This record gives sequence, C-alpha cells and structure tokens, in this order.
Amino acid sequence: MTASGTLRARRSERGDIRDREIRVGVIGLGRMGAMRAGNATRIPGLRIVAVTDPQGPSLSATADRLGVDGHTDWRQLVARDDVDAVLICSPAAAHRDQIIAAAEQGKHIFCEKPIDLDLGRIGEALAAVRESGVTMQLGFNRRADRNFAALRERLAGDAIGTPWLIKLTSRDPAPQPAEYISTSGGLFADMTIHDFDLARFMMANEVVEVSAIGAALVEPSLAAIGDIDCAVITLRFADGSLGVIENCRQSAVGYDQRVEVHGPRGTLFAENEQADTVVQADARGIHHSPIPGFLAERYDGAYLAELRGFAECLIHGAPPVATGEDGRRSAILAAAAHRALVERRPVAVSEITA
Amino acid sequence: MTASGTLRARRSERGDIRDREIRVGVIGLGRMGAMRAGNATRIPGLRIVAVTDPQGPSLSATADRLGVDGHTDWRQLVARDDVDAVLICSPAAAHRDQIIAAAEQGKHIFCEKPIDLDLGRIGEALAAVRESGVTMQLGFNRRADRNFAALRERLAGDAIGTPWLIKLTSRDPAPQPAEYISTSGGLFADMTIHDFDLARFMMANEVVEVSAIGAALVEPSLAAIGDIDCAVITLRFADGSLGVIENCRQSAVGYDQRVEVHGPRGTLFAENEQADTVVQADARGIHHSPIPGFLAERYDGAYLAELRGFAECLIHGAPPVATGEDGRRSAILAAAAHRALVERRPVAVSEITA
Amino acid sequence: MTASGTLRARRSERGDIRDREIRVGVIGLGRMGAMRAGNATRIPGLRIVAVTDPQGPSLSATADRLGVDGHTDWRQLVARDDVDAVLICSPAAAHRDQIIAAAEQGKHIFCEKPIDLDLGRIGEALAAVRESGVTMQLGFNRRADRNFAALRERLAGDAIGTPWLIKLTSRDPAPQPAEYISTSGGLFADMTIHDFDLARFMMANEVVEVSAIGAALVEPSLAAIGDIDCAVITLRFADGSLGVIENCRQSAVGYDQRVEVHGPRGTLFAENEQADTVVQADARGIHHSPIPGFLAERYDGAYLAELRGFAECLIHGAPPVATGEDGRRSAILAAAAHRALVERRPVAVSEITA
Amino acid sequence: MTASGTLRARRSERGDIRDREIRVGVIGLGRMGAMRAGNATRIPGLRIVAVTDPQGPSLSATADRLGVDGHTDWRQLVARDDVDAVLICSPAAAHRDQIIAAAEQGKHIFCEKPIDLDLGRIGEALAAVRESGVTMQLGFNRRADRNFAALRERLAGDAIGTPWLIKLTSRDPAPQPAEYISTSGGLFADMTIHDFDLARFMMANEVVEVSAIGAALVEPSLAAIGDIDCAVITLRFADGSLGVIENCRQSAVGYDQRVEVHGPRGTLFAENEQADTVVQADARGIHHSPIPGFLAERYDGAYLAELRGFAECLIHGAPPVATGEDGRRSAILAAAAHRALVERRPVAVSEITA
Repeated sequence: MTASGTLRARRSERGDIRDREIRVGVIGLGRMGAMRAGNATRIPGLRIVAVTDPQGPSLSATADRLGVDGHTDWRQLVARDDVDAVLICSPAAAHRDQIIAAAEQGKHIFCEKPIDLDLGRIGEALAAVRESGVTMQLGFNRRADRNFAALRERLAGDAIGTPWLIKLTSRDPAPQPAEYISTSGGLFADMTIHDFDLARFMMANEVVEVSAIGAALVEPSLAAIGDIDCAVITLRFADGSLGVIENCRQSAVGYDQRVEVHGPRGTLFAENEQADTVVQADARGIHHSPIPGFLAERYDGAYLAELRGFAECLIHGAPPVATGEDGRRSAILAAAAHRALVERRPVAVSEITA
Repeated sequence: MTASGTLRARRSERGDIRDREIRVGVIGLGRMGAMRAGNATRIPGLRIVAVTDPQGPSLSATADRLGVDGHTDWRQLVARDDVDAVLICSPAAAHRDQIIAAAEQGKHIFCEKPIDLDLGRIGEALAAVRESGVTMQLGFNRRADRNFAALRERLAGDAIGTPWLIKLTSRDPAPQPAEYISTSGGLFADMTIHDFDLARFMMANEVVEVSAIGAALVEPSLAAIGDIDCAVITLRFADGSLGVIENCRQSAVGYDQRVEVHGPRGTLFAENEQADTVVQADARGIHHSPIPGFLAERYDGAYLAELRGFAECLIHGAPPVATGEDGRRSAILAAAAHRALVERRPVAVSEITA
Repeated sequence: MTASGTLRARRSERGDIRDREIRVGVIGLGRMGAMRAGNATRIPGLRIVAVTDPQGPSLSATADRLGVDGHTDWRQLVARDDVDAVLICSPAAAHRDQIIAAAEQGKHIFCEKPIDLDLGRIGEALAAVRESGVTMQLGFNRRADRNFAALRERLAGDAIGTPWLIKLTSRDPAPQPAEYISTSGGLFADMTIHDFDLARFMMANEVVEVSAIGAALVEPSLAAIGDIDCAVITLRFADGSLGVIENCRQSAVGYDQRVEVHGPRGTLFAENEQADTVVQADARGIHHSPIPGFLAERYDGAYLAELRGFAECLIHGAPPVATGEDGRRSAILAAAAHRALVERRPVAVSEITA
Repeated sequence: MTASGTLRARRSERGDIRDREIRVGVIGLGRMGAMRAGNATRIPGLRIVAVTDPQGPSLSATADRLGVDGHTDWRQLVARDDVDAVLICSPAAAHRDQIIAAAEQGKHIFCEKPIDLDLGRIGEALAAVRESGVTMQLGFNRRADRNFAALRERLAGDAIGTPWLIKLTSRDPAPQPAEYISTSGGLFADMTIHDFDLARFMMANEVVEVSAIGAALVEPSLAAIGDIDCAVITLRFADGSLGVIENCRQSAVGYDQRVEVHGPRGTLFAENEQADTVVQADARGIHHSPIPGFLAERYDGAYLAELRGFAECLIHGAPPVATGEDGRRSAILAAAAHRALVERRPVAVSEITA
C-alpha cells in the first residue's frame, strides 16, 4: 500500500478531515518554529499534538508550555498516527529528508522556504509530495501579507489593466552574521528568492529571462566568497512585460519592503508599514516613525495569515498560499540570476530547467 | 474582618500573587466580553477559570470553548475562592453593583467604561474599591493604543516642550442604533468621555473649565430626545493650556481618531491607521485605502495591550493603565460639557464636583 | 455730477475698459506694495502707471525700476486721469481715507485687509464704494490659494454633501514684533480675521454665533495689554452647521495653514504645502521637509492669483475674489469673538451688527 | 583674430559684463522658446534684445509683445553686436550649426537638450565652444528642480554616506505623437537622456557600464521602427555603485518623476509634486490629487531656476547648471544603452567613446 493509499485509508477511518481539528506536529523549535507553534494555537482548526527539536532544553520548555509531547528525533514525530500535518521549521538542509519522510507517512506539509539550495534535491522532495498526494504549502509569507495580498487583489480585479512592469524593493535592516551568509546560498538564493516569488505571484505570469548586476558594497569582504550584498535584477515575463528587483543587505531606516506595479490605467504601490502613526513637526521638518524592525514585526500578521491559509487549505480545500512548485520556480530564478551575474549576460530561464 | 483584610489573608495563604497566574473570571459575554476572554488567553500570567452571562447559550458555548466553569449568576463567580480578578464586561447599568461585590470579595477589577452614568453611583463604586484595597483598572483602551501611547511618551520626553494646546478628533463611522443612543447617556457621556480621558492622559493635567456647542446634524430626530451628534468642546487646563475636542457620530471614511498636541518646540500628531498600505495612482488621483472599520479593527492591539497592562499591574505592581478615578473625572467632564451646552456658558469643573 | 457719474462718463470717453489695459496706481511700497507691484507686471491686462509712498528712497527706486511716475502724496496718484484702478497697500490706518478718495475719483480698488479696525469707519469706506459704483476687491489672499480654492470647488461640486463642520488651523511661524502686535487690533482682528473669511467662503454660509477661549501662552506678557496668542474660536452657522478655528502665534515647523470640512459623505482637507518633496529615511525615522516659511513663500501663488482675479473682474466682469462686504463681515466676527472672550459667553453676531 | 579674441576685445570695450545686463537673443519661438523668453523677462540681469523664428506670425507677435527686434534668419540675430548671449530653443537638428555660429561670434550659449543626436556632430559643436572660450549651459532642467537640487544638496552634505545605489523613475503622462517619436532618436536618446544626466549629477560619478531591457508595450507598433516605450536600464558607476532607471511613455496618474538614492546611513527620495494639497476622505478611501500634468507644470520652477543659473554664471562666474560636456556624456550613455539593448549584453561606456 502506497503512502497516499495509507492517507486515504486513514482519512476514511476518521471521517472527513473537514469535520475535525488538524492535529499538527512542529519540527524545529528555533525562532521560526517557536513563532509558528504560538501562531498555531491561535488558529481555529489546528491543534498541536507534538513538537520536536534536537536541543533538549528548548524542546521540553515548549512541550511543557503547550502541554504536548516532545521528541528529540523528528522521525518519531513524523511516524505518529495522531499527526495529520507537520510544520517543518528546521534548518534548510534538513527540509528535503523531512518532506520526503512526511509525505511517505501521508502527512500534510507546511515547510519554511527554501525547500533546499539544490535543484536536484528540490525535485526529489517535490516528487515524493506528488506521489503521496499530500498537500504541501511553502512558507512564502509575503503572499499572505495584508498589503501585498491587497495589491494582488487589485491587480486581479483589473484595477490598472494588464501590468507592463513590476518593481520590487527589498532591503534588510542590517546584514545577517557572516556565518549565516556563508551558508545561505548567496544573496539570490537567500534573499531575492522572496522577490522572485512575489514577482511571479503579483504578475500571475512566469519569468522567461533574468539579468543581474551586483556588488559587495555593504561588506566588501563578501567578494572574497563570491557573494554580493547589493543587486539589481531585471526580469522578462512570458507575456513580454518587464520586472526589476532591487536588494540590499542594509537599510538604516529598517526592513524596507515595497512593491510597485505599473500598467495602462495606473500604478499600484504597496508601501512600507509604519511602527506607529505619530508624526512630529518641528523646526527641522516633519518626522514619521521608522519602518518596523525586521521579519517578526513586519510580517507578524503574514505569518499568522499563511498558517490560517494552510488550515483552510486542509479543512476547506482552498489552494495553498504557495506550493512546492512555487518554491522550485523561485529557486530556478535564483540560479538563473546567479548565472547571469557570473556570465555577465541575460540568461533564459529555460537554460536552467534544461 | 474587612474585605481588604480578607484579601490580605488570602494573599498570604497563597503566597505572593506575583509568583503565579492570576485566576480570572469574566462577567458578561457580549461582544466585549467574548473579545476580552479571547485576549486573556493570549496573555502570560492570566488564566480564565470561570465566565458568567445571563444568556445560557453564549455562556455554555464560551465555557466549553475555554474549558472553564460557567455561571448564569455573576454573584456565584464573584464568590469563588479561586478567582483573583474579574473582568467586568456587562452592560454599564450593572457595573456599580458588580464592582462593589467584587471589591468586597477582595477581587481585583478590570471594568469596561463607563463605571456608571450617575456620579453618585460612581462614587459608591469607587469608595468600595478604595476601602477594600483591591486594584481597579478602567477600560480606557485608547491609552494603550500604540499610537497614542507613543505620542504620550514623546510628550513625557519633552519632545515639543510643555504643551499649549491639544486637539482631538473622534468620529464614529456611523451612528449607533437609536435604541443604543437613547440609553447611552448622550454624546458626551457615551463618546466624548473617551476624549476627555485621552486629553487628561496626554496633557498630564486636569481640566478646570468646559464649554461646548453641538447639534443633531447626522440624525436631526435626536434633537427630540435632547441629544446631539456633532459637537465641539473646548477645554481649559489647570496650567492655562487649551484643548478642543470634536466629535461626530458619522464619518464616511471610517472610524476617525486623531490627536494633535501643539507646543513651543513643535507639534505632535497621532494619525489614523490604514487598512493596508496599498496606494493606487490613476487618472483621478492617488488613492489610499480607507481607515479600518471600527473599534474591533482600530483598537485590536489596544484591547490586548490594556489587558496586558492589567496583568502587569497585578503581577509586577505597575500602575493601572487607567484608574477608577480617571473614570470619575471623565464622567465629571461629561456632566460639565452637558451643563455648558444646555446653559450656553463655560462651566467650571468645580461646579460639578461641588 | 456724482463720482459714479464721473466714472460712467470717463468710461464712455475711453470706450469699454475690456478693450484695453487697466492702468494701475500702487499706493504704499512696503513689503506688500513692492510684491504687488512686481506681480502686477506679470498679469496681462494690468499696467502700472504710477506709484506712491511717503518714503522718498523706496519710492524713487521702485518708480525707476518700473519706469513709471512716483508721487510722495497718494492724493496726487488718486487724482490722475490715467489711473483706472488703485492697489492700496498702505498701513491699515490709511485705508479708509484712501478708499473713499479713490471711490470719489471713480477708481476701482484693490485693498489689503483689513479695511479698518473700526466697524464705523469700515461702514463709511464701503458706503463711498457703493455710492460711486466702482469695483472693490479685498486682499483675502487665501481664497485664491490653489489648495483652498480647490477645496471650495470640491464642496461646490457636492463632493461630500452639505457640510456639518469646518475646522481651521492657522499658526504663524513666530510671533510678530511687540510693536506690530500692540497696534494690530489683537489676535482676532489681525490673525483670525483671515480664518473668519475662509470659514465663510468655504461654507458659503454666514456665522450667527461666536464663542472663544484664549490665553497668552507664547508670550505671557501679552496679557498685560489684554491680548492673547493662542485661541480656539467656535462658530455656529445660519444653517446649524458648526465651525472651529484654532490660532497660535508660534509654530516651530513653520506657517501652519490647514482646513478640514466634514460632511455626510466624507471629509475634505487642504493640507500644508511642502518646501520640497525630499524625504530622508534613516535610523531615526522618515523625515519630510518643513512647511514653507511664511506669507511670501506660502501664499506666493495666491497673491498672484488674487491680482489676476482683480484684473479679470475689471476686464471680464467676473465677481471679485473677496468684496468689501466680506471684509466687513469678518471684522464683525472678530468683534464678536472679542466680546465672547471678554464676557465669557457665546455672542450672537446680531449683537454686534445691531 | 579668433572668435575668443573677439570676445575678449568686446568685453574690454564694454567693461566687465558683471556691471551690466546680459543682452539676450532668443533663437526659436516654439513652445520652449516662448516660455524661455517669458522667463528671461523675470530674471534680473537678463534683457532680451532680439528674437528669431522662421515663422513670421509667431515672430512678430513675440517681438511686439516684448518690444524687441525680430529676425526670420537666426544668423542675423547671432551677428548682432548688441547680443551677449543666445538662448537656442530651435529644433534639435539646428543646434549644432547655431552653437558653432554663436561660439564663433563670441556669444554665450544656453541650448536646449539634446545638442544633437549624433556624437560626431556633438563633438564639433563642443569643439567650437571650447575654442571660442564662451560659456555654454545645456538645458538639463531637472538639475535645477527644487526637489532634485535639494536631494543633491543632502547627498553633498553627506546625509546618508557615499551612495550605494540610485533609482530613477521617469514616466511621461502619455506617448508623444508618432511623428515626434519617429524622429526623436528613440527612447534612450529622447527620454532616458534626462535620467542619465540626473544619475550622473546625483551620484557625482561617471557611469562605466550600461545594460538595458525594454519593450514596446504601450504602443506595440513602435517595434516596427525598432523603438521601445518601456525600459529598465541598469548602470555601474566608476566607484562600484549601482543604478537603475525605469522609463515608460505612459502613466495614467501623470508625469511621474522620482529619484531614490540609497546609502549606508539612509535613503533619500525626491517624490512627485502634487497638483494641490486637497485630500478627500470618503467611503472609498483617502484620495490625493494627481501629479501635475507635464513638463510645463512640473518643471515650471526648474525652467526659471536654470535660466537664473545661466545669468548667475555669466554675471557672477558661477559654474553652469549643466555643461555641454554633460550633454555629450549623456548622449554616450544613450548610445551605450541602445547597443546593450540590441546586442543583449552589458556595454562598457568605453566601447562607445573609443
């Protein structure tokens, strides 16, 4: 009996999953996992039954707080009969194995991005998901951000006509630690990957060609490991429309995340959030508060909303906020951007997928 | 043994309250009570042990969902030994009796505003609280709003010098139902009372004189019951500074809540929140999204923050976000405004308290 | 033959004024007069033929620069046959006599506000204008400001329905010199008078009752001469709608001039101008440039536009931007506000006009 | 005697030019020439003495209005002894010959951009200017725009540190007529040339490499003549910093002109101007007025300021706002962008100048 057969069997045993709570296991209790676990308790229809982390102390603290079982070995969690779905919040290097194992056990999967840094390994993970028939959602949180989602809705409602151009700005408040960056896969795979996904999501169209320029300006020593921290990436979409992404690892004002889409009947912007609405007008000018700090503050609501989306997709059959295939496509675009940068030429996306 | 003696006894029995969770009973499970109960579950240090509502169905639904006891008679909840504090979310007419009973039982009190519409009854409730020694916090949520709190912090940090003038705008998106308004105590007691409190909070100063003009412009039929729905109230503070509050029961753009404070070195504003940051630029202009709908959306974070403040005041001895006395003072200002409107003259606050 | 008979006679002699340039004499070459003279040269249809100022040096400098005649005695200028219209830019105390003389000579009149500080003298000046049949425009520049004019146009176009409330904020960047203030007629006559006019203009309605509170907060020594520098004035209009004006003699951010009108279908704002559109986002926040300095910068365009309006009213018969009667009405409101402040009660406008 | 010798001779004859007015001749009285002539009359130190245009009617109308001589042959104007400087506002094709002739006659030159579409002809014109020693200023109006100038000043004042990236957005409100576009030299030479100049001006640095993608999206028929109407151009500067320019021939909201510069200590923006400051808040949202129409409205102040700059450079020896060499550099960048687009590769600027 295949994994997907098992799933169907277990489903029929317990009646329609839509009648009851989704029993969730959380894999990895670092910053993201702890946040996801907290969010899961706020979403009707999700119930955490077990958590897993190789670090004993954080494991037992969280298990106690939530009143659930704790496992140091994630395979034990994945094997539990009373787990319907897993939230994979472990380091990226573990994602592939965990996805495959969960899929084989018939567990639905929510996985943080990236699936993996290697396209071959991504393909293996997605194949396992496909074969098992489980549902997989990827943690492209920005799709669930209220501002970006509202912009997408306007585009879908034909507010400005068929877009000609998309422009994304994404700047981190400060560079990640050197050890993080050195294993991150580089700027395109680590940071731009969110923008590739957002560009595809917004334009509802596929990128066919990528060009890129970049430099190590924030931290010139990055050049030694072949990485950059400022970049401009240009895109051509299948319908002929254009795109441009700008990234930087440092932004004094905070986590700068903006989208602009230009079309025949107008231009749509998703502007930055404000930490608060206080304005101070004095002899030096008119001062607004800075942009909220970083991921946790800026995408607070988006993290909750995407998990709610995962629950809705399992309970009501809604489409996932982002699929594993969305993850693979963005990884391909990151690879194309890297090649474009190195070879100093526009790279057709088909060159990568070939 | 007095009520406050009882409290001290029970405190010593159970050790310092700071070592443990505050066990909370929720009185009233209407819109506000249900929201407060949900929020209480998100605040570390608070644990709901019982709820009460005269309506059986909403009572049992909430009790079941939270896994706590339900009482149809609030006196049973107040009498429970395992309740440290009550959240009074019932209709205003019941507040006085519930405050007195809770105080006599040595329970700490969080109470929605207003304490009562009658200054004599407010005085009775506050006397009971004072005598018992329990802590009481009043639900003046706006003090806990991130924007207003940030503005207050700037003032406290001397950002613009000692203020000369405060200007408050507060407009509801649409008039409340006629039956609500007819028992609300009128515009000043129902709506302006929040602005009176916010003015005192921001200026850290007491109002000594009130003037008012107003009219029933949104719903002219209100004039028949002696009420108004648009008003401008001017204030004099003890230090000579000035204030002006503007209220309206209808605002097409949504729940319009703004504060402006002007002083020697500048002007501070707390502007409205935005539903989202999407901007549409087209041939007709540049369009921002409307202001979020009403209380639940606008003061979502403030409701949570003020309950967190209540927990901190019980656990760590922080001062309450707003006290019962703050409630009494605002009720006095509402009475002064009413007299000023009817008698068409400035009314000294001392005339009311006399 | 009456003055107005003279005018008609002279008009027929020279054919229709619409066929030719308006020959203008400028009375007073202080800051305002010099600016008006410069503006007049930029308006097609106006031609300066003479200027007058008691100060010899500024007179001859301007006369030379413009290539026109200079008179130290304004009565000579008013008497010239080749002057069709006068721009009265002298100190306020001289306005009444100059208006009367110009009217008797059949000259059209553009006069800076105020007509006079005394209602009786204002009445005499307006009677002379009425009798002579000349056209008189008063320098209520704000009516011609692009922002306020655009707001008025929206109201006239029924953008928000019949207004319920108008709110005006007007703050000077810094107090005028003590000697100026001591002869200015006080805050209401000197500063609020512009807001009274703007309120009437915007609401297209007459004020029937005025209340006021105020204090000398910026410069406490003003109290000694019975003046104030911060004030809140509330208004009732004939149709029952409400108004509130807030004034202050000091504003660190610059010349703060805002209007807000609230009505059944929405709210209209005329916000401040910006010195430039540069925004600096840094670790302390997001900083916009201050508001432009003072009259000359803020109302640069309005000064030009109102003079263009004067030309259009003489050449094409358009109504004046503001009439002498508008000036009288605002002076009445200033008097009512003064009485309301002193007598600490609402004052019916009819009390003043009686 | 060389032209520049002539100039020196004539200068000594008439004393220092700084003591007196600059006598100006205007070449070409189309839309730009008429506007320039009007502006010249408002600038102290400039005096128009003659105008020239091949079209009789517009020539005599302007000559009459200004009270100056009119010539149908521009060579007559250039030959006049009483002309110190010429404003060349004729079609671009005539610029080279007029520049050379004016330089040979020792006349200072203000010339609208572009100098020419051909780099060889540009070189000839600049050589003549260089040899004659006259001063030449090129009409890169955006450098004189109050917003862009203020941004540049902030950068020069080290407000954000040495910039890492510049981002320019420039979109016309609507496509120019087909006949204009067909002779314009294409998007890069006609439209992006302003952005190339602004990028160099802002960064105070030279571009060393250009890449470009583009498409005919607004008017697909443009593809037939090898032109595009939407483009993204990326730049590398000599110091390693990056740039990106985005252009589009259509923008529903109006003439969209923005600059953003990002650096170590913050980000600077020059935002769009507003037609007015009116904001309408209603049930559909919060609506600001559109961006002012096109060149005449948006750069009204800049056109005046750059001519004032020309006067100051002739009278006080200030550097020109933009030089002929600035014009040549931008033309080179346009040629590089064109080659990058056609050859689908990054083009080193040195390839063009070689």
